[in-house]
Amino acid sequence: MAIQKVLVANRGEIAIRVFRTLKEMGVKSVAVYSDADKKARFYQLADEAYCIGGITSRESYLVQEKIFEVAEKSGCDAIHPGYGFLSENAAFAKACAERGLIFIGPKPDVIQALGDKIEARKIAIKANLPIASGTEGSIENLQEASQVAEKVGFPVLIKATAGGGGKGMKKVESKELFASSFNAARNEALAAFGDGRVYIEKYLENPRHVEIQILCDSYGNGAYLFERECSIQRRHQKVIEEAPSSILTPDMRQEMGECALRIAKEVGYENAGTVEFLVDKHRKFYFLEVNTRLQVEHPVTEMITGIDLVREQVKIAQGEPLSFTQDDLQIMGHSIECRIYAEDSENFMPSTGVVPHYVEPNGFGIRTDSAIQSGSEISMYYDPMIAKLVVWDKNRESAILKMRRALSEYEIAGVDTTIPFCQFALRHEAFCSGEFDTHFIQNFYFNREKAPLGEKQSAVAAIAAAIFQAKQNGAAQETQKNTSSRVCSSWEKRKMMR
Amino acid sequence: MAIQKVLVANRGEIAIRVFRTLKEMGVKSVAVYSDADKKARFYQLADEAYCIGGITSRESYLVQEKIFEVAEKSGCDAIHPGYGFLSENAAFAKACAERGLIFIGPKPDVIQALGDKIEARKIAIKANLPIASGTEGSIENLQEASQVAEKVGFPVLIKATAGGGGKGMKKVESKELFASSFNAARNEALAAFGDGRVYIEKYLENPRHVEIQILCDSYGNGAYLFERECSIQRRHQKVIEEAPSSILTPDMRQEMGECALRIAKEVGYENAGTVEFLVDKHRKFYFLEVNTRLQVEHPVTEMITGIDLVREQVKIAQGEPLSFTQDDLQIMGHSIECRIYAEDSENFMPSTGVVPHYVEPNGFGIRTDSAIQSGSEISMYYDPMIAKLVVWDKNRESAILKMRRALSEYEIAGVDTTIPFCQFALRHEAFCSGEFDTHFIQNFYFNREKAPLGEKQSAVAAIAAAIFQAKQNGAAQETQKNTSSRVCSSWEKRKMMR
Repeated sequence: MAIQKVLVANRGEIAIRVFRTLKEMGVKSVAVYSDADKKARFYQLADEAYCIGGITSRESYLVQEKIFEVAEKSGCDAIHPGYGFLSENAAFAKACAERGLIFIGPKPDVIQALGDKIEARKIAIKANLPIASGTEGSIENLQEASQVAEKVGFPVLIKATAGGGGKGMKKVESKELFASSFNAARNEALAAFGDGRVYIEKYLENPRHVEIQILCDSYGNGAYLFERECSIQRRHQKVIEEAPSSILTPDMRQEMGECALRIAKEVGYENAGTVEFLVDKHRKFYFLEVNTRLQVEHPVTEMITGIDLVREQVKIAQGEPLSFTQDDLQIMGHSIECRIYAEDSENFMPSTGVVPHYVEPNGFGIRTDSAIQSGSEISMYYDPMIAKLVVWDKNRESAILKMRRALSEYEIAGVDTTIPFCQFALRHEAFCSGEFDTHFIQNFYFNREKAPLGEKQSAVAAIAAAIFQAKQNGAAQETQKNTSSRVCSSWEKRKMMR
Repeated sequence: MAIQKVLVANRGEIAIRVFRTLKEMGVKSVAVYSDADKKARFYQLADEAYCIGGITSRESYLVQEKIFEVAEKSGCDAIHPGYGFLSENAAFAKACAERGLIFIGPKPDVIQALGDKIEARKIAIKANLPIASGTEGSIENLQEASQVAEKVGFPVLIKATAGGGGKGMKKVESKELFASSFNAARNEALAAFGDGRVYIEKYLENPRHVEIQILCDSYGNGAYLFERECSIQRRHQKVIEEAPSSILTPDMRQEMGECALRIAKEVGYENAGTVEFLVDKHRKFYFLEVNTRLQVEHPVTEMITGIDLVREQVKIAQGEPLSFTQDDLQIMGHSIECRIYAEDSENFMPSTGVVPHYVEPNGFGIRTDSAIQSGSEISMYYDPMIAKLVVWDKNRESAILKMRRALSEYEIAGVDTTIPFCQFALRHEAFCSGEFDTHFIQNFYFNREKAPLGEKQSAVAAIAAAIFQAKQNGAAQETQKNTSSRVCSSWEKRKMMR
């Protein structure tokens, strides 16, 4: 029953992430790579690697037949899909089963049900999870939709049933604007997903994105590995995540964790998964969706629990019961992840090219998950993420200071990166005080300098400053002025190296 | 009272180690570097750096006046000595105080007293620590010495009073050989330390080296941060260390910890220190010596306690009380450190040169403390250590598997390294079972292939194999045959890159 050889149907840092754990488990690993990735580093860390041709994802990592061909040729007995690509494709999971391959993830029908946002919403209601008010199912009739919106109260969100990543999503402020937004959302959803169905949900003001990591085995045992705070987003994509969240009380954490396990139980969930919630300014939480795969930001959970999530995924997939119970788990310290993208930090537009010089930060409590080394190329064909820089320390304040240090130490030449944005965020009063929401980038970063600090922010700044001065014993000596000049100069150096 | 700016009177990885924590604390850092280190990376991570000329240590890092000149010029208020160089030099610590500089370490008289091995032995006796039987003080008269040796019982050790690193140390098997060894030891000690005094101690068969990390503040508070197992040594120098030790019971750990705090209290110890013990095959422990500085192998303690030792050193030095008590401390998981030296792994002879290609392992639970990057040079003038590769995992078995993975991933071209030795050790039954002593390298590595496994070793091998098969759930799939071929091929690749 033990898995012997795993094909990782993915690329880049997440492929390496999985290879590493497989190697530690004594399980053989098989990589696939496209023509565009021929010079990539990631597949060199697998025991075997096969070129599957193609340039774009559609020609390579998304082509199920190519994946299966390699799985057969190399004698794999399991497939790990990573995140993205085929990871939430129920048909792929089903095809794996039909070929006698273990898909390291939930069962196909669970992926299917939770992938449909309306279906997931219905399951959440059945499992007694709090959801934002709105339509129960998809809605096609404009007039009916408009009535629902009015009943729910503006502003509302129109969301694509098959959706994700913000595509087909429209915020509507008032009744007058509803009709045009409804039609636009339907068209956008149809174009993006080939499925024009939409539904309506109450729009939450200043929400925070908080998600619960779960692990469930095939015997009905499950545990939640606490939460990740993922409110710092641009274009509905997370850029900075942390665990634990600074707004959760122990009671709230337990309540959300139990909600996550209830929806998992409702569908017979197996393997690792993430139940996402929005938390409003009154600290009430609402079910958002379930991601039926490993998340990009899973390392922060590993850092605070000491549990290797990929190892647990493999063990569950090969039929082992969970080796721990909820009571065995505890939060140790604090972890923050900064996703470092090859992007212009001003507008988050991709910046591709060769990286002639690359040195990662290191030391106590630093982890970098990356597939880059000096000489690597960031191509235009795939996700421009260079690395996930993860830090751990005893508490949030120390973790913030450690992340600042790590960011200042990171040397990446040849491409623009989002490091300057991360440095901005890690020094901003709103982030440091823990008082921020999903509009952080819009409100504070894009509007910086233009908008002077308001009263509320000044109070926050004062609190944050006080916390740092009191707790860090000299750690706050670096004045804001020195700080920004330091940031600039190290960034200038990097630019000069190009 | 808060320290504002620290000069790190050291080089290489330990200088970077200290800079990193200073940066996180908001304390400015100042580096010094020799002419031989002009192209080195380490000083680039400090806020300021000054060349102090010279090639050898004696011309640079050991010249107190040069250090003080930079400290004054740059306006430092404290000096961190790292390990080696001036770190255990009482006169230097005294000179710091006289110039109004905080020496980040114990008081000069404490360094002085514990640096003299006879004095330390007397203090240990006074503090009621178990010591190996032998002379109470130095002994000059051959006849008296011979009588002591006979009383203690052969084999005995003759050790240099001013000694360390095995210099002036002689094991004597019988009365007939005593006179010649006694004279040889005295001459060797005189040559090495300018001090020919020696003393005699019972020789322990198959001892293990286990040391206790302590932290003591200026208010009489102290805590022990558990033990480090450092029995894997070559030429009396540690190469693989771990925490916790596989032979300590909780009672023994507490007893040794309390012994360490007793000797600390006896001398009014302040700051970080290490109390070293030998443990015999009956698991009885004997005081060996106190190292009055940060140890090379301190990271394994940080990994299992979550406490940044350098941060604590700085906080203690600026007059803060310990922020935790013994009861707050607990061992979390297991950590192993492999020192990666630029040495021929067959005979441990230095291998110098440029490293054209250098990529560190990474991922969950991996930490690399190093001052090397692609293009760095390993010079003949200083310690040839390339890096300290440190892993953490939930338990010893997983940590061993993780270290094997990390070693297999490490890419170092251009110089020979001790990675093949580490790979040997991490796969050896004696290491894996935890049944080894300070003669591991002599018994198992230098004699490998020549000596077929005896009965005792076979039993150990069987136990180790059973542990792995039972615990790792498929992790032991990699057969011994595959394993060694993999090790060879990755090593061959590395050699080919030169």
